[in-house]
Amino acid sequence: MAQKNLAALLAFSTESEPALVRYFSDYWPSFETAAVLIPAEGKPALLIGPESMTFAQSRSKIERIIQIMDFRESSQPDYPGSKLPTWTDVFNEYSVDQLGIAGWHMFPQAIYSNIARALGEETVVDADEVVRSVMITKSEGELNCLREAARISEIGLGAILDNIKPGLTEVQVAALATTAMLNSGAEATGYPVWCCSGPNSNQAISRPTHRQIQEGEIVQVCVGAKVSGYSSSIGRPIVLGHCSEEMRRFLQIGCDAEEMTIGLMQSGTPAAEVAQKVHGFIKEQGYGDTILYGPAHGCGQMECEYPFVETSSEFDLTENMAFQVDLFLANHKMGFRWEDAIIVANGKPEQLSSLKREVVVL
Amino acid sequence: MAQKNLAALLAFSTESEPALVRYFSDYWPSFETAAVLIPAEGKPALLIGPESMTFAQSRSKIERIIQIMDFRESSQPDYPGSKLPTWTDVFNEYSVDQLGIAGWHMFPQAIYSNIARALGEETVVDADEVVRSVMITKSEGELNCLREAARISEIGLGAILDNIKPGLTEVQVAALATTAMLNSGAEATGYPVWCCSGPNSNQAISRPTHRQIQEGEIVQVCVGAKVSGYSSSIGRPIVLGHCSEEMRRFLQIGCDAEEMTIGLMQSGTPAAEVAQKVHGFIKEQGYGDTILYGPAHGCGQMECEYPFVETSSEFDLTENMAFQVDLFLANHKMGFRWEDAIIVANGKPEQLSSLKREVVVL
Repeated sequence: MAQKNLAALLAFSTESEPALVRYFSDYWPSFETAAVLIPAEGKPALLIGPESMTFAQSRSKIERIIQIMDFRESSQPDYPGSKLPTWTDVFNEYSVDQLGIAGWHMFPQAIYSNIARALGEETVVDADEVVRSVMITKSEGELNCLREAARISEIGLGAILDNIKPGLTEVQVAALATTAMLNSGAEATGYPVWCCSGPNSNQAISRPTHRQIQEGEIVQVCVGAKVSGYSSSIGRPIVLGHCSEEMRRFLQIGCDAEEMTIGLMQSGTPAAEVAQKVHGFIKEQGYGDTILYGPAHGCGQMECEYPFVETSSEFDLTENMAFQVDLFLANHKMGFRWEDAIIVANGKPEQLSSLKREVVVL
Repeated sequence: MAQKNLAALLAFSTESEPALVRYFSDYWPSFETAAVLIPAEGKPALLIGPESMTFAQSRSKIERIIQIMDFRESSQPDYPGSKLPTWTDVFNEYSVDQLGIAGWHMFPQAIYSNIARALGEETVVDADEVVRSVMITKSEGELNCLREAARISEIGLGAILDNIKPGLTEVQVAALATTAMLNSGAEATGYPVWCCSGPNSNQAISRPTHRQIQEGEIVQVCVGAKVSGYSSSIGRPIVLGHCSEEMRRFLQIGCDAEEMTIGLMQSGTPAAEVAQKVHGFIKEQGYGDTILYGPAHGCGQMECEYPFVETSSEFDLTENMAFQVDLFLANHKMGFRWEDAIIVANGKPEQLSSLKREVVVL
């Protein structure tokens, strides 16, 4: 913050992007949005919406909590009679004249313009880099949350492997994992758990539907638990009944690429080198046109967080960075994702899931 | 749009605020964001992020789908080599020179400034009112989705009533409803289902924790299913074992206020009058300081959507508006929420839940 000449940092979060506020306060917004105001000197404040005071008091590790109308829910109630402080009140109290905003890419224009009116437009800047430099490597406490999240994610996947059968809907398959994780210590799922099957299996991002899963097709499951704010994930393609040779070969390429990625992710290695080698291997095997991204992304408060490991990456892997190795490959008729969590170490990475990587035909 | 002189409308959504994009396209973003571009003349386009093409193709009722880098996920991958159209490309193709943005209150500043650079700042305006005028009353198809969502929400609450016992954690109680709803036709929960108990019960917005529920305290459950994009909700306070007289009286005031609200919500009635009468009743009973908002809010694609029924409301209730009657009252040590879905009609509203409203002591 000193380098960037910031009097204060405002770290913003929403219900589906809770990372920054959770990281700095342990508060976790729902319906409303929130931010943590961190002055260069002195104590921080948690800024919440009009309905979340008791909720925030029960969770926040930051004592001072301020309600701001701009963080109300999208239904935009009036709360007649409520007298909440303005941005000017807050900035005066905290002597803010230069403000960096983290979560810049999702910070609402409507709130930005209220802040810019209070402070002057040139004094409000993108400060994502400030928090990224802190969050990109994990403390032992954070790593333990990720280890536990990965352990519970595997319980979720196990519940699917034990109970999956043709005729279940994708939603019901996802529910198997969701229930098992919530009953095993997860505070929530890390993201909306998904199952995408057959013609849906080539979706890089998906949501479960009411489609009934069938034999002889790829049933892709991606399962992630959240523990104390930290999300992990495990992804496996499953085939019920007969697996064609074409399908088996395609799945195996992904599995081999996943193993290769994990082997390459050692402290000191340039991230781009990992991506280039793995994508090179996939291309050599004749599957270059099935690559969309990857082969790994950061993991922590968000199941998918900065930084991505891709051919254009400009950072080196460092001890205690946490990643999801995420081999998604797809063509026009099918796709799959092998996904496992790792922690970068000197030498081989620590693997957070123990479930064998092999083509599963049940 | 013609009244506002708009060449096009851009309706924006996120993972946790999917309403507008779902409404206009049936696509439902996850991880990435999205928008629907609706020109004043001609066909609309669905705008999505770099990873969602196959997902969007499987869901979208809008044929034309355009990928935009600005709608990528918050981890901000580079996607080296990808050549996606710019805002200028899109606006040229659709002859957009004036743009209204719906979802204005959450539209990211970073994307707004890219659009303003392409179009000129004065030509980009808040267009929430344009979509609200369309979405505020529901068609018969939409009402049927809400009826089904309410029916399944009641199944979720039933699973809690059948299985709740002291010692379960709040997360486990929430999981009972979540599982039952996903297995009964819900595509998802309408919001992160919650259970807040004892000292947590006074949270107007909440999330379940690992706290074990106990006898003699309020265990508040709020349960909602999503069906074809439409969310409903049912909320009940539950007491296990002994219910003190103080607690029973407080709960009964809320229950009576809920009944009163439902009785008042008839087509033609000013919304403010409903709020004034109900809040007047609660104040007469000596509980005025337990009021935070309400007593009702719109319901549709979002479980809580515009408009709120509050003492400052400036609209009249109209046939086929859908609401959650939502009586949340809380003091410093306990709180509760009676919540039920209704559809405004001529005369008595249609009630979407059949579960009796009475203080439940199990």
